[in-house]
Amino acid sequence: MEFSELLLKRRSIRGFEDKDVPMELIDEVIADSLYAPSGGNRQAWGFIIVNDRDTVKRLSDSSKKNILEQIEKDPDSYMARYKDGLSNEKLNVFHNAPCVVFILGEKGPMGKVDPAILATYFMLSAAAKGLGTCWIGLGTSPGPDMKAEIGVPDDMTILAPLCLGYPKNIPDVPERKPANILKRIG
Amino acid sequence: MEFSELLLKRRSIRGFEDKDVPMELIDEVIADSLYAPSGGNRQAWGFIIVNDRDTVKRLSDSSKKNILEQIEKDPDSYMARYKDGLSNEKLNVFHNAPCVVFILGEKGPMGKVDPAILATYFMLSAAAKGLGTCWIGLGTSPGPDMKAEIGVPDDMTILAPLCLGYPKNIPDVPERKPANILKRIG
Repeated sequence: MEFSELLLKRRSIRGFEDKDVPMELIDEVIADSLYAPSGGNRQAWGFIIVNDRDTVKRLSDSSKKNILEQIEKDPDSYMARYKDGLSNEKLNVFHNAPCVVFILGEKGPMGKVDPAILATYFMLSAAAKGLGTCWIGLGTSPGPDMKAEIGVPDDMTILAPLCLGYPKNIPDVPERKPANILKRIG
Repeated sequence: MEFSELLLKRRSIRGFEDKDVPMELIDEVIADSLYAPSGGNRQAWGFIIVNDRDTVKRLSDSSKKNILEQIEKDPDSYMARYKDGLSNEKLNVFHNAPCVVFILGEKGPMGKVDPAILATYFMLSAAAKGLGTCWIGLGTSPGPDMKAEIGVPDDMTILAPLCLGYPKNIPDVPERKPANILKRIG
């Protein structure tokens, strides 16, 4: 696909067809994403592939429970705005996607930027192959039991939970804010 | 350009032709980058365009001086490994690029991921238009005087200094590490 077309086709997808994603296709998207640059070419990142609807649902339930417990402890937290939604038993934070790929980075300040670049490559590659993704902020914190089940290492953290599947439809591009150009010299 | 080709053409460029970048082309790259997704569609980012070799050189000198002062204060810092290079008067941390575009985010933990996604779009769009970029970690901290001159607002921070110009050549893709797949379920 032409990059100029891909810019319009890569949209956050929140509705998926009832169709599984072949593991080979996921591996192709991952292979593409490895072309992402990284600081000092360290490539300090990791992938967890959950291509199983039951596990995705349990990850959603665990994430909701964990965040609600955090809101209970700290009612003023940023997450409190999601309380009603998270209390809805039917809500699947991963939009009932058949697959979620978790992109992990090292713990600490160095662990955010490189995996974010990688995740961007992943989302663009997936769209070029006819797949849809959505970066699910609410999916970064499943409970300790689920983190252990999916194999999150102690020295890494989930940066980008990307739900993945065949999109029901590709929404139009909403209007962008004008470029916030703070200064132009030259 | 086809996305599959772009994956190989987007390389970190450290040598530039002696040719200026038209401001209109920079605006086109910025317009492309605005298709990047952001958390809650907040689009909380900003651009500073320095399309002027003299200012780029002074930003390089200021960044070197500022980092060397930090190393002086904290000899065990991560930056100490760059001490010899930064002491070289001839070194231009921006690789003598004719232009640097600074991508800024909000201060704090929320200010890293979204501008990193935006910067990734910027680098890919630039490569699709025949331009080269390199994300210059050493360029995030020019001194306070230069920050004021280029207009860094008090509530924002430089996340990605991207040098920009016409590449002398596009290096081959170095071998990637194999995908670090921590677990595969399904």
